[in-house]
Amino acid sequence: MPSIKDVASLAGVAVGTVSRVINNSGAVKPDTRRRVEEAIQELNYFPNEIARNLKMQRSKTVALLLPSIWNPFFSELAYYIEDELDQEGFKLMLCNSGGKPEKELYYLDMLQQNKVAGIVGITYNDIESSVSNHIPIVSIDRHFDKKITCVTSDNYEGGRLALKELIKAGARNPAFIGSVTSVFSETMNRRKGFVDEAKSLGVNYVVYEKPDPIEDEDAYFDEFFNTHHDVDGIFAITDLLAASYIERARKRGIRVPEDVKVIGYDGIQDHPYFHPILSTIRQPVEEMARMTIRLLFKKFEGGKLGKDVYHLPVQFRQGETT
Amino acid sequence: MPSIKDVASLAGVAVGTVSRVINNSGAVKPDTRRRVEEAIQELNYFPNEIARNLKMQRSKTVALLLPSIWNPFFSELAYYIEDELDQEGFKLMLCNSGGKPEKELYYLDMLQQNKVAGIVGITYNDIESSVSNHIPIVSIDRHFDKKITCVTSDNYEGGRLALKELIKAGARNPAFIGSVTSVFSETMNRRKGFVDEAKSLGVNYVVYEKPDPIEDEDAYFDEFFNTHHDVDGIFAITDLLAASYIERARKRGIRVPEDVKVIGYDGIQDHPYFHPILSTIRQPVEEMARMTIRLLFKKFEGGKLGKDVYHLPVQFRQGETT
Repeated sequence: MPSIKDVASLAGVAVGTVSRVINNSGAVKPDTRRRVEEAIQELNYFPNEIARNLKMQRSKTVALLLPSIWNPFFSELAYYIEDELDQEGFKLMLCNSGGKPEKELYYLDMLQQNKVAGIVGITYNDIESSVSNHIPIVSIDRHFDKKITCVTSDNYEGGRLALKELIKAGARNPAFIGSVTSVFSETMNRRKGFVDEAKSLGVNYVVYEKPDPIEDEDAYFDEFFNTHHDVDGIFAITDLLAASYIERARKRGIRVPEDVKVIGYDGIQDHPYFHPILSTIRQPVEEMARMTIRLLFKKFEGGKLGKDVYHLPVQFRQGETT
Repeated sequence: MPSIKDVASLAGVAVGTVSRVINNSGAVKPDTRRRVEEAIQELNYFPNEIARNLKMQRSKTVALLLPSIWNPFFSELAYYIEDELDQEGFKLMLCNSGGKPEKELYYLDMLQQNKVAGIVGITYNDIESSVSNHIPIVSIDRHFDKKITCVTSDNYEGGRLALKELIKAGARNPAFIGSVTSVFSETMNRRKGFVDEAKSLGVNYVVYEKPDPIEDEDAYFDEFFNTHHDVDGIFAITDLLAASYIERARKRGIRVPEDVKVIGYDGIQDHPYFHPILSTIRQPVEEMARMTIRLLFKKFEGGKLGKDVYHLPVQFRQGETT
């Protein structure tokens, strides 16, 4: 079966020129085009081959897999990812994959078929066996056994910072509350930083965790309140969990910050209209988004990436809850 | 130049069969495939034709244009739109086009090239001259001089409902506060319903509007507070504007709801963790999203759409601000 090389050779042009004629892309002089078309006809260059080549064209689309665009942290991230892609003329495909590993696998398949050029994944599903270092994927927060470049905030430092700020605000018996995913995520380092700092300062602390996702928040908090009466500081693994704690504490007559100081993680409140305004560890969402896309483009160009995990610095943002 | 019909005729098969052979899609019996391939070769069926056909293949991607995914109302909408598309095996392309008409025009261009199968647009840019009734677009909230099918909540009824609820809560001098886009949007009916209901009940009312977007909220509210001392009820065109009003009123010593009752529009608070919980006109976001996609698919299939504008019913949701 004749190949595109045979066509190029017969027409006396480069393979790229044949490709441009087939795809109607780019300028080709009329008589060059005619020669290529004649060569295609003379060789009976097989249409399926052309079809395949067309399909192999690099897509200028990147897929973003995240649990849910409805979550304010993810929607802010998606906003900046789209903006950074747009600057390079790339489009964003959005996939809410929360709890649906089969959707993520579908996008990996699209990647192999060149229907998308790359993937940015914020995934807690178990798709470890389907990814490798050689495909253009950048992960946020989760790293896959070091196979995949990962961008994350400095979760460990964020945990330390939260503990220090709780102590500074007067807490003597602080607790970390969170949930544990079945796969390793960088977010687990929030707890580690918290615990290490507590140990280093010699203060008492509590760690309260349940499997992720928390199906029944009522039960989660009932057990916490019933077993940890003396806690006077809370570092919650996300802002939403912190807000949920505060609401339930209020109903039990526990005042924040008078009785218990509370710090969240994320920094989702970009406008101060709803109260309480959380004290929180703010992730540098815009920088994380833009760096992720720049790393992905480096991968497109075959660039070597120096580090597997990029930790971006976090900041404590004082609100009304410490 | 031979056409796909000539190939089909020579091979003694249907055009669809030739198409399946060319595109390697769907089952074709081996000897049918061989006959089609022979006919293609015998006729020198022109590759560019095949290339063109391939490119004309309907993309299974729909583009969503919205001002900003960061806005909680839009991120909820995008969540359900993606979910509804996913059920049909379609992918969602996301574009934040706020204030950037050139991005929207780019997607219209992709639509013409069949790179996307359709567009869902929430747009306040002036792209009127670039759209027509014949292309698969469904608009949310804005209608384009009746050229484009539009899905929206019942903004007029929402405005009436808000006025009635303010009066019921004790307001005697309610105000509508909002901003006016340069192009007509269904959201303008929120004011109309409010005004009509006030007239019909014979109550005093105030309308306070500035051009959209409100660049300087401080100036916007300073002028409002300085010129409207006696207002005791607020219907804000969005929840965010309502929340912004409440925050500024608080700083001036105005209590909500004791001194002024406040109602927003949208229903963005899906969890009651941050206060005040707004009294609001809740849009049926999920239904709007799913209906939009179903109408788009109807357009794909060449279906006639009975109505230009679909108004979905809204509900008053009691919060802490009335």
